[in-house]
Amino acid sequence: MKDEFSLIQKIAPKKTYQSSLIQGIGDDAALFRAAAGYDEIVCTDTLVEGVHFLQSTMRPFHIGYKALAANLSDIAAMGGIPLFYLVSIAVPPAWAEEDVLEIYEGMRSLAERYQIDLIGGDTCAAPNELVVTVTVIGRVEKGRHLFRSQARPGDVVFITNTVGNAAAGLELLLKKNGNEPYSEEEAFFVSCHQTPAPQVEFGRFFAESGVRIALNDISDGVASEAHEIAENSEVSLILYPDSLPFHPYMKRFSGEKQLDFALYGGEDFQLIGTAAKSDWEKIKKECAQKGWRITEVGTVMEGKGVYLEVDDRLMELEKRGYNHFRKR
Amino acid sequence: MKDEFSLIQKIAPKKTYQSSLIQGIGDDAALFRAAAGYDEIVCTDTLVEGVHFLQSTMRPFHIGYKALAANLSDIAAMGGIPLFYLVSIAVPPAWAEEDVLEIYEGMRSLAERYQIDLIGGDTCAAPNELVVTVTVIGRVEKGRHLFRSQARPGDVVFITNTVGNAAAGLELLLKKNGNEPYSEEEAFFVSCHQTPAPQVEFGRFFAESGVRIALNDISDGVASEAHEIAENSEVSLILYPDSLPFHPYMKRFSGEKQLDFALYGGEDFQLIGTAAKSDWEKIKKECAQKGWRITEVGTVMEGKGVYLEVDDRLMELEKRGYNHFRKR
Repeated sequence: MKDEFSLIQKIAPKKTYQSSLIQGIGDDAALFRAAAGYDEIVCTDTLVEGVHFLQSTMRPFHIGYKALAANLSDIAAMGGIPLFYLVSIAVPPAWAEEDVLEIYEGMRSLAERYQIDLIGGDTCAAPNELVVTVTVIGRVEKGRHLFRSQARPGDVVFITNTVGNAAAGLELLLKKNGNEPYSEEEAFFVSCHQTPAPQVEFGRFFAESGVRIALNDISDGVASEAHEIAENSEVSLILYPDSLPFHPYMKRFSGEKQLDFALYGGEDFQLIGTAAKSDWEKIKKECAQKGWRITEVGTVMEGKGVYLEVDDRLMELEKRGYNHFRKR
Repeated sequence: MKDEFSLIQKIAPKKTYQSSLIQGIGDDAALFRAAAGYDEIVCTDTLVEGVHFLQSTMRPFHIGYKALAANLSDIAAMGGIPLFYLVSIAVPPAWAEEDVLEIYEGMRSLAERYQIDLIGGDTCAAPNELVVTVTVIGRVEKGRHLFRSQARPGDVVFITNTVGNAAAGLELLLKKNGNEPYSEEEAFFVSCHQTPAPQVEFGRFFAESGVRIALNDISDGVASEAHEIAENSEVSLILYPDSLPFHPYMKRFSGEKQLDFALYGGEDFQLIGTAAKSDWEKIKKECAQKGWRITEVGTVMEGKGVYLEVDDRLMELEKRGYNHFRKR
C-alpha cells in the first residue's frame, strides 16, 4: 500500500471489547493476557482472489466477512470463544483504498457481533490478485476443547442447521454473473455464500455440555469433514442421505443437486459432530428448547471411511473436497 | 494445492519443542496452554513474490527463512520469547511441491534454533504469485514488554550489531541477477539479505535488564524505525551519522551509499532503542562482556521528528520506508 500508516489509522478500532488486550493495532506485535483456567486457540485462513472468490461473486465487504467467518468457524469447531483477530492483506494496484476499507468493514460487522478486537496485521502491495489472511485467537476452558478424534462406534452423527446453501448460492452467482436481480429464495442462497454464519454459539453449547463430542466445521463439504472425523477417530461414519438437513428453499434444486451441494459444496460453516446415543437425546431436547435446529444424519461404526446408506446398501463416499472455481 | 493433505504430512514436524502445545498441525486450529506470569504476544507478516522477493533474489529456502525471521524480529522488539508459528501459503501452479517444501525447510532451520513449533496454517492455490504469511505466538514476563513509546528526552539511542547489510546484499543480487559467483565479502551481504538473523537474544537481554527501554526492530530502515519511536514516545531523535555501526566489508561502498543502505534499506532486523544515560553504561558493559556489539548512535530530545546531526547542524530525516523493488 502506498500509505500503510494512513490505512492503519482508518481501520484502527475506536474501542476495544476485550479487557485482556494490552497492546493492539499500530505496533508490529500485539500483547494480551491469557485468562486462568483456559487454553488458547489459534487458527489462520487465507482467501485468494481468483481461487476463493471472484470480484463478480463477492463484494469487498463479503471478502472481509467471509475471511473472518472461516476462522470463527474453526474456533466454533473446538467449542471456543473468539477474542482477537489479525489481518494480513496484499493489495494489487487496481484495488482502491475504499475497497480495502470495505474489506475491513466486512470483518468489523462480524467482529462486533462476537465482541472481538482487531489487534494487528500487515498490509502490503500485491502484483495481481488480492490475498487476505486472517488469524484468530480464542480460548476454551481447560479440558473442554472439542476434537475430531473423539468419535466412538455407536455414536450418533449430527449436523447443525441446514447444509448445501453456500454452494447453491455460488452456483446462482456464477450463473447470473453477479449482475441480475435475485428472487427472495435466490437472495437467501447468495447471502449464505457471501456472508456465512459461523456456529460459535453451537460450539459453545457443545463445549459447555460437558459430554464427549467429536466436532468439525463444514468448510469443504460434508463428505470431506466426515472423512476427517473418521480418520482422526479411527472409525467409520455412515450417513443417511435422506436425513441431511436442507432448507425448504432447496426444493428448487433436484435431489441429486442438493446432495452434491451438501456433500461436496463448501463453506456452509455448519458443524458436523458425533455424540454417544445416551447423550444425544439430551442434546436434541436442549437444542429444541433453544429453537436451534440439529439433525441426526448418521451413525458411527468400527472400521474406516465414510459411507452413504442408500436402500440398505453402503456406498463409499470419496474424500473429495471443495475446489471453488478450479474444477467447475 | 492439489494434495494439501499429503503436503501437511510432509511438513508436519517429527517432534515438538514446547510442552505447552496441546494440539498442533493437522487440525484447523491449534491449542496451547499459556504460562502463568507471562503475557502473550502475537504478530504476523506477509511476503509477496514480486513485491518482497524475486525468484532471482531468493531461493525458496530463503523465502521461508525470512518470512519467519521477520516475525521473530517483531517478537525480539518486544523482548519476547517465540513459541509457535503458523504458515499460510498461496502457491501458484508454476511452483513445484519440492519448492514449497524448501520454503518450510527454510523456516524449520530457524525454528530449530529457537525451539519453536509449527502448529498450523493454511495451504491453497494462487493464480500468479506466491504469497506466504507467517504468524508467530510468543510470550514475555508480565510488565516486562518493551515498547516503542518508552523513549524519554535525554536517553541514549543505540543500535545492535551493524546496519545496511541486507540492503547492500539486495543491491548485489539485483546487479548480478542471482547468477554469478560472489566474493567472500559479497556473499556476506547476500546472506544478510537472504537469511537475516532476528535479534531475539538481544531483545531478551533488554527485557531481563529490568530498566526502561524503548525498542523497535529495523525492518524498514533506521529512518523509518526511528520515526516510529519518536512518534510513539512523542519525542525527537537525533542521530549521529558517523556513529552508525557498519560492518568492515561495507568500506567497498561510498559513504553516501552506506548511509542510504542503513537509513532507507530494509530488513536488517537489528534493534534500535533508547535507554536512560544512567542505564546505558551498564548495558554497554554487559554487552561487551557477552561479546555483543551495541553502539550509541544518537540522543533523544524533546520535540518531534528525527534528525541527522551533521557538522553541528540538524538535518530532518524523512519518514521514507523501504520499498523493495517498486521504486528501485
